[in-house]
Amino acid sequence: GVTSVKPGDKVIPLCLPQCGECSFCKNPESNYCQKFHFSEPQNLLPDKTSRFSCKGKQINHFVWVSTFAEYTVVPEYAVAKIDAAAPLDKVCLFGCGFSTGYGAAINAAKVKPGSTCAVFGLGGVGLSVVMGCKAAGASRIIAVDINQDKFAKAKQLGATDCINPRDFKKPIQEVLTEMTGQGVDYSFEVIGHADTMIAALASCNMSTGVCVMVGVMDSEISIDPTLLLTGRTWKGTMLGGWKSRECIPKLVSSYLEKKFNPDLLITHTLPFAKVNEGFELLRAGKSIRTVLLF
Amino acid sequence: GVTSVKPGDKVIPLCLPQCGECSFCKNPESNYCQKFHFSEPQNLLPDKTSRFSCKGKQINHFVWVSTFAEYTVVPEYAVAKIDAAAPLDKVCLFGCGFSTGYGAAINAAKVKPGSTCAVFGLGGVGLSVVMGCKAAGASRIIAVDINQDKFAKAKQLGATDCINPRDFKKPIQEVLTEMTGQGVDYSFEVIGHADTMIAALASCNMSTGVCVMVGVMDSEISIDPTLLLTGRTWKGTMLGGWKSRECIPKLVSSYLEKKFNPDLLITHTLPFAKVNEGFELLRAGKSIRTVLLF
Repeated sequence: GVTSVKPGDKVIPLCLPQCGECSFCKNPESNYCQKFHFSEPQNLLPDKTSRFSCKGKQINHFVWVSTFAEYTVVPEYAVAKIDAAAPLDKVCLFGCGFSTGYGAAINAAKVKPGSTCAVFGLGGVGLSVVMGCKAAGASRIIAVDINQDKFAKAKQLGATDCINPRDFKKPIQEVLTEMTGQGVDYSFEVIGHADTMIAALASCNMSTGVCVMVGVMDSEISIDPTLLLTGRTWKGTMLGGWKSRECIPKLVSSYLEKKFNPDLLITHTLPFAKVNEGFELLRAGKSIRTVLLF
Repeated sequence: GVTSVKPGDKVIPLCLPQCGECSFCKNPESNYCQKFHFSEPQNLLPDKTSRFSCKGKQINHFVWVSTFAEYTVVPEYAVAKIDAAAPLDKVCLFGCGFSTGYGAAINAAKVKPGSTCAVFGLGGVGLSVVMGCKAAGASRIIAVDINQDKFAKAKQLGATDCINPRDFKKPIQEVLTEMTGQGVDYSFEVIGHADTMIAALASCNMSTGVCVMVGVMDSEISIDPTLLLTGRTWKGTMLGGWKSRECIPKLVSSYLEKKFNPDLLITHTLPFAKVNEGFELLRAGKSIRTVLLF
């Protein structure tokens, strides 16, 4: 029986759950729950059933969230109960994009005050990384994107410099190294391309630089191991390192206390029937996040 | 003029110098001096001269150390003054091998008490990693090598388990994951092979595992970025993260206080004329370290 939430509670469904019982959940430094279905991809609930159907045909679940459905079924450990005062059309971003980017800076990189950061990719997650770097006290935040329409928003959220790799003949890692003298302290790849992953790694300084991989990529990536041997650190993060059931409600409370404002990431709000228009805006680089209302 | 050392001082020449003036030297978290000639390979002294010749022909310097010469010339910032009581035929290991391995565990991985470690490659550096893991309080240290003649020494130095990948049909990362339930907390690659680098990365747990690259490799390495995305950290280290001029003398003092015993790494001592015999012993896997005496 479900005991931690009741009818009427406001909740956020979690693609990365927190069972609270596995060795990773019990480790204060880990947010990777072993009940996560990343290692064993599945389109069904843990009991191997689907609770969706359409015209008699079974429909699969999607990462235990299935938020393109008006009603959904999720395991109890994959839902976070949040403050009853939270506006759902805003804090819906906390289920993935905002938390992932913000936490990548706060938890994974542990950005220090006065440091220099570079963020590759200025979508909703990348801009949340910018917000996290600013909240952590970075003194210089260099935003990198080939779509310069993103630059105004990046500056509004905390970027001190915005650069477009297409404006330079030399590789962007060389540009960043020249801009900073020795490379940035922290770099973030928030796209999922091999070229930008290598550029992000090479952009952080060879001695103490930390590169955090946030973008997801399926194919192999080839690097010169010397990039690491000299002292760099390369790491990845899921959901920004937050223990989901425990931390997402706290993030929502901080939002209600106006400690940060991810509302600025929401550029469009559409009725659910216009879901495909929302995707078109995203593909065309014209939106950051489109919220769909049922 | 040279002011920090005088004739008669005992010193260790440093392949990684500490100029004390560059931004990395001034950063307490970095040991990567910008005067290091790794980024700009050179076989001459900083003034672009060679001080070696043989039968009228110029001989190159080697990483500012050139310890196969009875006399050498090094920059002042590439020499560490050590305790006058130190036995040179033992602490010569502190110039590279021992310090690199021991520091990889202590400084780069920051191994925690009670943790589980895997060390790939049981040469002089790998065995020094084993010593570092033990000194840091690791509760389980799994030593990995295809030469099982190294296992007795590894156990003497702190390894709790020794495994030979050739004894298993499945990849060694799967063996290690099964042995530990979820993968080790820290893994170390001390060989410099692409296969073992990937195995070491995959052997540490997917959530908080840290893999430290110690072995040097020239060619590119191809990995599945998912190995990092789930939370692993991959990093490298030079000279075990020690600031050379400052820390090597302290390590020598700790040795004189019997805090660790790298003497056990010295399996052979030969007169310099038998240098090639020393190399043969190394190649054949019959020695750990051979000390040459002039």
